[in-house]
Amino acid sequence: MKRFEKHIFICENKREEGHPRSCCADKDSSQLKKLFKEKLKQRGLNHIIRANSSGCLDACEFGSAIVIYPEQTWYGNVLPEDVDEIIENHLINGNVVERLKIKEKRFNKDE
Amino acid sequence: MKRFEKHIFICENKREEGHPRSCCADKDSSQLKKLFKEKLKQRGLNHIIRANSSGCLDACEFGSAIVIYPEQTWYGNVLPEDVDEIIENHLINGNVVERLKIKEKRFNKDE
Repeated sequence: MKRFEKHIFICENKREEGHPRSCCADKDSSQLKKLFKEKLKQRGLNHIIRANSSGCLDACEFGSAIVIYPEQTWYGNVLPEDVDEIIENHLINGNVVERLKIKEKRFNKDE
Repeated sequence: MKRFEKHIFICENKREEGHPRSCCADKDSSQLKKLFKEKLKQRGLNHIIRANSSGCLDACEFGSAIVIYPEQTWYGNVLPEDVDEIIENHLINGNVVERLKIKEKRFNKDE
């Protein structure tokens, strides 16, 4: 295993008000990052699974957007109440959370 | 291929002055990110290789620190003059730039 078994990047990009693409920060992605960090720590997983703030992931239309590596799974419209499901299903058990996957082809196209 | 063939995260975390771990922002990592973005765009690679700002990657002692996915290669003490070599050797030709790899075991340990 490398340093992190899984590395989650949560977009916290903030655009000026009224920008046509909007931004993840306006969809409370900071709270999302906070929750991922807290819950991974509570489970003692934060040394092998890192939740990381990121700048714009160019998935603005799907905010809050996150990407999980090394598999590069893209999730969109992620809400605080989805965090437990992503941790349990994807990060711990290795099962993609289908309902949250970004459906647009250019994202998760070879899965 | 998924959305991005390679995804480079460049730490731009900024800590308060005098913090014992220092921070990548103090080592001009914003300039580094800017250079990666510019040079990838010049080569027409920015749609398949994305340079992304990130929050703290917990590699503060090796700032400016970057990590490249999906392979999770960690580079440290990266300077603006290293950008071309990382693009040419690693991102285009798939050869790790050994001299910039973070040598501490917990980073690139299984390579």
